[in-house]
Amino acid sequence: MRKRIQKNDIAFLKKEITKITPKTTDYLLRFNIINGLKHAAKNSPYYRSLLQPILKELSFKNCKTIFRKIPFTTQEMVKEHPEQFLAVPREKIAALDFTYGSTGHRKVIYNSPWDLTAIINSYVLGFINCGLTEKEVVQIVYSFGIWGVANNILHATLKLGFLALPTGNYLSFQEQKEFIEKFGTTAILGTPSYIYNLAKEITLTPESKKKIKVIMMGGEGLPKHRRKVIEESLGGEIFLNYGLNELGGGIGSECKEHAGYHIFPNFLFEIVNPQTGEPVPDGEFGELVITTLKREAMPLIRYRT
Amino acid sequence: MRKRIQKNDIAFLKKEITKITPKTTDYLLRFNIINGLKHAAKNSPYYRSLLQPILKELSFKNCKTIFRKIPFTTQEMVKEHPEQFLAVPREKIAALDFTYGSTGHRKVIYNSPWDLTAIINSYVLGFINCGLTEKEVVQIVYSFGIWGVANNILHATLKLGFLALPTGNYLSFQEQKEFIEKFGTTAILGTPSYIYNLAKEITLTPESKKKIKVIMMGGEGLPKHRRKVIEESLGGEIFLNYGLNELGGGIGSECKEHAGYHIFPNFLFEIVNPQTGEPVPDGEFGELVITTLKREAMPLIRYRT
Repeated sequence: MRKRIQKNDIAFLKKEITKITPKTTDYLLRFNIINGLKHAAKNSPYYRSLLQPILKELSFKNCKTIFRKIPFTTQEMVKEHPEQFLAVPREKIAALDFTYGSTGHRKVIYNSPWDLTAIINSYVLGFINCGLTEKEVVQIVYSFGIWGVANNILHATLKLGFLALPTGNYLSFQEQKEFIEKFGTTAILGTPSYIYNLAKEITLTPESKKKIKVIMMGGEGLPKHRRKVIEESLGGEIFLNYGLNELGGGIGSECKEHAGYHIFPNFLFEIVNPQTGEPVPDGEFGELVITTLKREAMPLIRYRT
Repeated sequence: MRKRIQKNDIAFLKKEITKITPKTTDYLLRFNIINGLKHAAKNSPYYRSLLQPILKELSFKNCKTIFRKIPFTTQEMVKEHPEQFLAVPREKIAALDFTYGSTGHRKVIYNSPWDLTAIINSYVLGFINCGLTEKEVVQIVYSFGIWGVANNILHATLKLGFLALPTGNYLSFQEQKEFIEKFGTTAILGTPSYIYNLAKEITLTPESKKKIKVIMMGGEGLPKHRRKVIEESLGGEIFLNYGLNELGGGIGSECKEHAGYHIFPNFLFEIVNPQTGEPVPDGEFGELVITTLKREAMPLIRYRT
């Protein structure tokens, strides 16, 4: 079992962010690759046999190239045999998440307390990237329940001292509007499709619209025309986020520059040709392949998204 | 602002419970009454004017009798002027809870981070009273969302290291059954009415039924014939809990003796004649009047339930 980070408070996170220079990034990445592979190889049944031969020749120098010899992990494997990826004893699992889907085809995601802390911290980083401060009134319109995102986001808002309105997506749009206006909501967090429909259905008073600073969305893409509807109806600056429940919540988030995502340092990214599996040249489109370098309960290596 | 309890971990709580003898209870109660009244009188607009004359003559000796001179606080006052009861600056509010009801008539409950910790600890104490251990698989079938109970219970299960299944009450009963059977649920937590309907609609396999140790219910009463249906269908030992969102979550919980509720020490209870407001003799029925002695954001004194 990994040691749990003790100082996971905001001051610590902010300090960590400013400390990291491009020079240290490469060192940290290699360190995390080696530790991540060792953890999976030691504790996860699936990776134990797969990684043994690779571990023998692994070194600080060759880890970034040797890494590319590891076969991909597919969504189907994770869906059908989640317990093969489990790298902690069952009694150390604190929470299960489930990705959306019809019953029987949900993917089960195991989280240890350490993983949950990391997930919550990833959302905290996303909030900091948006420029949110402790005075925010944050209305969470994600679905509360077995899809753990809403609960984890609620934990994250409490960490930053926001006033949280966990209205979920079970209220009527008119009720959401009443909450926005009554409590002076300054940030709305939810999926693009839900917020788009909310934007279409309600008309806020000018004062309430002015108060909304941030619309933070994740879980789906956002077509241009929908972005426009949301901006015009609700006001506020739109921030898109990328995350995957099975990989540990938030993976990247936009900042006020809106020039792409800030990537959280717990992951390794590759963009590959979906046919050949080979890396594509810089700037070309390909399939995103993600490795969780610090995940405790369910590490996934070269996971095809 | 009150100092936040630093050592709010389980070991601390357990130690506190064993330390308290009937002799110290009276001392603690007087201490808490004086501190609770002072906090409300200093910081809450409504209680400021109401309590000033009483505070002048308040002493360790007379506090239990002088307390009864304070006028009752009614549900209507709290419903209509919640901000009059607010005893911390607005930016120190971490979460709003809402009691059930149609829009516009919901009561708003303010919680500071300290209050949230106290609420979560009250649920932790309830779990300990039921004999739940860290190996539990706990299915939470309360409604997730603006009624904060489900979220706070989820926090509490994470504190004790349970494996939490936050299925909420939005899944179909058949889906709840699939979760129980697939993940080996050992405890089900929800409202009596939801669990009664679940019990009527599903038939568990004998193995799954055997695994269920505890059915923990709160939020409503439980008629005898419903208790029987739940026991027969789901198995497990039934524990009833009493709590009120506006007073800080869990207030009392049953233990394995099933001889009444263990009352959490943050409250003062009175049973009064609803007509005269005078205390009723021991053993007679009356209206429950509760005072929150340690609540930070929204202290309520002599609150008629």
